[in-house]
Amino acid sequence: MQLAQYLKNRSQQIEECLDQLIPEKKVPYQILLNAARYSLLGGGKRLRPIFALATFETFGGEVEKALAAAAALEMVHTYSLIHDDLPCMDDDDFRRGKPSLHKAFNEGSAVLAGDFLLTKSFEILANLSFPDAIKVELISALSSHSGDHGMIGGQIMDLAAEGREIDLKHLQLIHQFKTGALIKASILFGAILAEVSSDEKKALEEFGENVGLAFQIVDDILDVTAPQDKHGKKISSDKINQKSTYVTLLGLEHAKILAQESLAKAKDALKKIPRDTGLLFELSNIAVNRQI
Amino acid sequence: MQLAQYLKNRSQQIEECLDQLIPEKKVPYQILLNAARYSLLGGGKRLRPIFALATFETFGGEVEKALAAAAALEMVHTYSLIHDDLPCMDDDDFRRGKPSLHKAFNEGSAVLAGDFLLTKSFEILANLSFPDAIKVELISALSSHSGDHGMIGGQIMDLAAEGREIDLKHLQLIHQFKTGALIKASILFGAILAEVSSDEKKALEEFGENVGLAFQIVDDILDVTAPQDKHGKKISSDKINQKSTYVTLLGLEHAKILAQESLAKAKDALKKIPRDTGLLFELSNIAVNRQI
Repeated sequence: MQLAQYLKNRSQQIEECLDQLIPEKKVPYQILLNAARYSLLGGGKRLRPIFALATFETFGGEVEKALAAAAALEMVHTYSLIHDDLPCMDDDDFRRGKPSLHKAFNEGSAVLAGDFLLTKSFEILANLSFPDAIKVELISALSSHSGDHGMIGGQIMDLAAEGREIDLKHLQLIHQFKTGALIKASILFGAILAEVSSDEKKALEEFGENVGLAFQIVDDILDVTAPQDKHGKKISSDKINQKSTYVTLLGLEHAKILAQESLAKAKDALKKIPRDTGLLFELSNIAVNRQI
Repeated sequence: MQLAQYLKNRSQQIEECLDQLIPEKKVPYQILLNAARYSLLGGGKRLRPIFALATFETFGGEVEKALAAAAALEMVHTYSLIHDDLPCMDDDDFRRGKPSLHKAFNEGSAVLAGDFLLTKSFEILANLSFPDAIKVELISALSSHSGDHGMIGGQIMDLAAEGREIDLKHLQLIHQFKTGALIKASILFGAILAEVSSDEKKALEEFGENVGLAFQIVDDILDVTAPQDKHGKKISSDKINQKSTYVTLLGLEHAKILAQESLAKAKDALKKIPRDTGLLFELSNIAVNRQI
């Protein structure tokens, strides 16, 4: 299968799975489901679930079995975007080319829809058709990578760094937590579901860390180079928010070089796995050499 | 042991456990831990963890073994209070007799500290020293009772009902979701940890539902009758927010009668359990006949 077709197929499967997991239905709390669906469906690169599925498939897993777990990752990612866009956080009015949830609905609904998606992700994992030991490992991986020593820790450091100068080391720490941790968890999800060996898991973690780093650098680059209609955010919200980024700290060209170096390290990690890792290789290329 | 002494001991054990689970430490995301600790420690009735522990003890469990799981319940309760107090939600400036988290820190930190406590609760459950099957059951119970068909669903209905008249049936549904579900989950926690029979679990759920209902009615009563220094909230925030409550819908006296009726039903449910349920009996008395 061609990579473009692979991505199209998986994105569609993930979309369908998300649509089923949080269906439109007539309940007294319908507005909560509508708000969650507004942010969750019909957009996004689906990078995290696709990495989870691709890792699972690399080790011989059947994609259908891992869809719900992969969807849980997308829910956590989406909740973090919803809360991150709030006026008291990054104050972004647009997301994925349409008004942010708190603009389309209201702030209270946005807070609660985020809380709901986070809660739902754990409910989904607890109810998977996998052995309990695997479910516990997934829940442990997701919670640890999206908590204080992961995504939320990164968010609070990011918030604290606004409007003041930070050095490259601190920036890397922020992004390793804020973005890298969940990307790493996604690859770990595929590894846990496929019950890979501990050596393979270690190599996959190294792969995930470097892809996550490269991905974030590219995000910073696109924040200044991509037009709004493609990137779905107003141009350089980082600049408006006076944020230090890889571009402001290193300059555009040096940032591009660092992204490519991290991508090369990610690919080196794949070589340690005695499997055909072509799919993960290609995905890392796309994640880093993207235009949006 | 006298009940007052029991409550004092358990509260202290829970406080110590919470303090250990989210310790003060020098990390780059320290402000997140400080914010969480501000809201989590040194206050609150600890009703939910105490109900979990008391249920566990009723079936012969050793309290020390269930402390971390009980603490996870308190974290979910605290996160819900933090988010509920935000300006875009109930806009409460005080909680437990001191400034709300978003007033003491800032709104962004309050959103993230809430997210963190919710995430942490699942991390704690996934890492308990219990068999995987029990951990999965706890996580499933907590997530389902605190999600769309539980606490968050109740919050969004509550938000949507502000400023407009609702009937008693709708009010009961809101509170069954918003408050009742997590109280019920707390009692379920004790039942799951103690591996009770399905008949016993059913009776405990009935107990939990009715205690939860009675507790909320009393909350509405105290919102108009308790002074700020005891209740820790400014007087009648419900009135300021134009909320329908059991008191506004039924009047104070009728509301008191309904609380006692629910308490009686809770006690009836306990009679179905062939055990000494005196502790749960006494706790339900205290939860409903409290002055704060």
